[in-house]
Amino acid sequence: MALPMKYLLTLSIVFACLSLHAQNFQSDSTRIAGFFETSLTDQKGYAALRDLCKSIGHRLSGSDAAARSVVWSANYLKQCGADTVYLQEVMVPKWVRGEPEKARIIAGGNGSDVSILALGGSIGTGQKGLNAQVIETTGLAHFASLPAEQVAGKIVFFNGPMEERHLNTFIAYGRCVGQRWAGAMQAASKGAVGVIVRSVTMSNDSHPHTGSVGYSDTIKKIPAVAIATRDADKLSAALKNNREVRFWMRTMCTIHPDVKSHNIIAELKGNSSPDEILLVSGHIDSWDVGDGAHDDGAGCVHAAEVIRLFVQTGYRPARTVRVVFYMNEENGLRGATEYAASVKASEQRHLLALESDAGGFTPRGFMFDTDSVSLNRIKQWQPLLRHFYCGDILTGFSGADVAKLRKMCDVLAGYLPDTQRYFDHHHAATDVFESVHPRELQLGAAACAALAYMFDQHWP
Amino acid sequence: MALPMKYLLTLSIVFACLSLHAQNFQSDSTRIAGFFETSLTDQKGYAALRDLCKSIGHRLSGSDAAARSVVWSANYLKQCGADTVYLQEVMVPKWVRGEPEKARIIAGGNGSDVSILALGGSIGTGQKGLNAQVIETTGLAHFASLPAEQVAGKIVFFNGPMEERHLNTFIAYGRCVGQRWAGAMQAASKGAVGVIVRSVTMSNDSHPHTGSVGYSDTIKKIPAVAIATRDADKLSAALKNNREVRFWMRTMCTIHPDVKSHNIIAELKGNSSPDEILLVSGHIDSWDVGDGAHDDGAGCVHAAEVIRLFVQTGYRPARTVRVVFYMNEENGLRGATEYAASVKASEQRHLLALESDAGGFTPRGFMFDTDSVSLNRIKQWQPLLRHFYCGDILTGFSGADVAKLRKMCDVLAGYLPDTQRYFDHHHAATDVFESVHPRELQLGAAACAALAYMFDQHWP
Repeated sequence: MALPMKYLLTLSIVFACLSLHAQNFQSDSTRIAGFFETSLTDQKGYAALRDLCKSIGHRLSGSDAAARSVVWSANYLKQCGADTVYLQEVMVPKWVRGEPEKARIIAGGNGSDVSILALGGSIGTGQKGLNAQVIETTGLAHFASLPAEQVAGKIVFFNGPMEERHLNTFIAYGRCVGQRWAGAMQAASKGAVGVIVRSVTMSNDSHPHTGSVGYSDTIKKIPAVAIATRDADKLSAALKNNREVRFWMRTMCTIHPDVKSHNIIAELKGNSSPDEILLVSGHIDSWDVGDGAHDDGAGCVHAAEVIRLFVQTGYRPARTVRVVFYMNEENGLRGATEYAASVKASEQRHLLALESDAGGFTPRGFMFDTDSVSLNRIKQWQPLLRHFYCGDILTGFSGADVAKLRKMCDVLAGYLPDTQRYFDHHHAATDVFESVHPRELQLGAAACAALAYMFDQHWP
Repeated sequence: MALPMKYLLTLSIVFACLSLHAQNFQSDSTRIAGFFETSLTDQKGYAALRDLCKSIGHRLSGSDAAARSVVWSANYLKQCGADTVYLQEVMVPKWVRGEPEKARIIAGGNGSDVSILALGGSIGTGQKGLNAQVIETTGLAHFASLPAEQVAGKIVFFNGPMEERHLNTFIAYGRCVGQRWAGAMQAASKGAVGVIVRSVTMSNDSHPHTGSVGYSDTIKKIPAVAIATRDADKLSAALKNNREVRFWMRTMCTIHPDVKSHNIIAELKGNSSPDEILLVSGHIDSWDVGDGAHDDGAGCVHAAEVIRLFVQTGYRPARTVRVVFYMNEENGLRGATEYAASVKASEQRHLLALESDAGGFTPRGFMFDTDSVSLNRIKQWQPLLRHFYCGDILTGFSGADVAKLRKMCDVLAGYLPDTQRYFDHHHAATDVFESVHPRELQLGAAACAALAYMFDQHWP
């Protein structure tokens, strides 16, 4: 577009209706505009994310990097202006990927290398690797129909794609991630020796996407890997041409005893009702590829920015804003479990538990998990939130960590950014700092501050 | 985030209210869902954009590439399923950049190369280039306060930044693009010999962003260039250290006689009211850098996809859907002017004139330029459009081309994607195919189809 200057200046938002009292609306809007202006102009959250990604990088629970990220987080939260910063001890699993995985499709005497990542928690194949014939399935439902004798001794290739037809990519994720979690158990129970899972992404590329595999104490554990989508298509094509296709893979991952780690907790004490808690949170652990930038460095920054934006703009909350960076969301939820236990044992009342764990993309709104009375109360704020591009109010899943607080908190909430690009990066080497847009990240931070502010001002 | 599968399946949108009759809502929603599903799954618009960008690339009015893009467009629109495709002749300006620009900051005897692009329409400096002392200004308002004797004989450096505080980047654009358009005229009227304009982007990088410069018949024409933001900061720093900074630049651009070109027009004839026109449009010309992918290859694809999605999903409209790819939006609006003249001379009634010219990013909604009765009618559709992530209804600027139809059309509209990333690419070498996300582009296409469908079904 060329030169719309004179017209653009007339742009203005159309409010369908203003359900809040006009006066409240004006003062809330002014305050929230201040969060957004500060966030967009100084971009301190983006600078912090750069530092986390560049100085520490990915940080799987139990790793040295995760331990360093605890120290980093405590310093960062102090710099944001928290009154108090403390650590909450938690024992976490330690799974180590080991040397890079190798894999090859073997068809008609020819070998073709492909990109894989062991799924988190998987056992390794040992130095020699695993070599077996492959059987392909479109997912758990189809696999259930296969007789055990077709499966025994083979590697099962779960090739169910993430369905592009869904507008919200999290829906598509929810519909196909089951094969990643449950595939190894189902396959082993029919005598399979290994599992290959199509990466849970709509991106057609050469980056495998990892994630947790589930095992059961009563079913034999077999090695499980994610294969890049492009290589999944290659393997599927090879199988169409030749039913005797074999697959060789070597994964050197190992499982170690639990290690001591920490949640990082920071507070901005409430002025008049310090025992009423507004919780804002993300998880500091990540998978051991990429930088853990969107998942969930961005979420930690969003949470920390709530305190920073309050302090920076001179807003002293009535209730206590508490930031938690959970440890071990990705493979155990030990941090969230520990935090929930401490809440249960305390006298404090949690009004809101907000988690940002859906990426650092441009805001849409929030997901809420609460009762209908509370939801209707929140919907009164929708015109105001829409003004700041974060007015989509959906119900459903809030966040894996805050879900542990169900029945201990008035409202569970999840920050909801635009979902289109998230799974291009999720759990893959492409989840790097450079994939986060500064303005999108900072808009998300201000959106979280806006929601916390509205709870502070208007929650009964 | 880890494993929210079982919760995600319960995700559902909360409708604030359903203003349409429930039955209409259901059938409209089903039809529109079909546009989205087809768009997201076959991604034919994205494939067409790839072809345009890779086989033709950028296509400035009057260039050979622009001529090839006319042929390409006619073929493409036929493939989309249009009944009729025809060309509308229009004479367009021809400005040629010539060999790549060179420029250097000269301070204290040292030279430092910087990245510039001549502004579109600018005269060249000649082979020797232009070498003069530099005077910096923060924008047109500040420049107006400078006495002519401080300016005469110098190159004026308009360094007003795009302000980050605005949530909508088009607002920020509108507030600072004036120096690009009017800077050369204002500077020349005080005796300046050239103009350097800070690139109109919030991105801090080495890519200059071009765009039109305005000249007047009564004011001396002086060379005008855009400088990359990083180099603008370098120049500004040099000026702070040393007030005698000189700048050397060489631009070899030339202005030629007008050449014959074309708008490309395609129709899907209305079943029952063929003389009622639903216009959907973009502009096929682009600046002569990058691929013209977001600006405005994406807009052309959005428009063409309306016909394609209607045909593909078996929806035969009652009114005629007309697609126009305008020629010469960027530096003259000759195509739009010609099209508007033809509308004025015809008996046909335009109900809607929609333009997509704000990039191929994820949908937010639409901008409307219409009367309040029409706006209220459209707002009835908001709950439905929100369901498809395109329910933001704003008023203001629609599009430079469709604005020529004001008073000849019930409703002027502009597709409104998320604005955060647009000016990272706008008029720069970074506006390439790879910067367009397939799903975001296809969601935009389906959003345009949804709006056209609602007009077809529900406009009086």
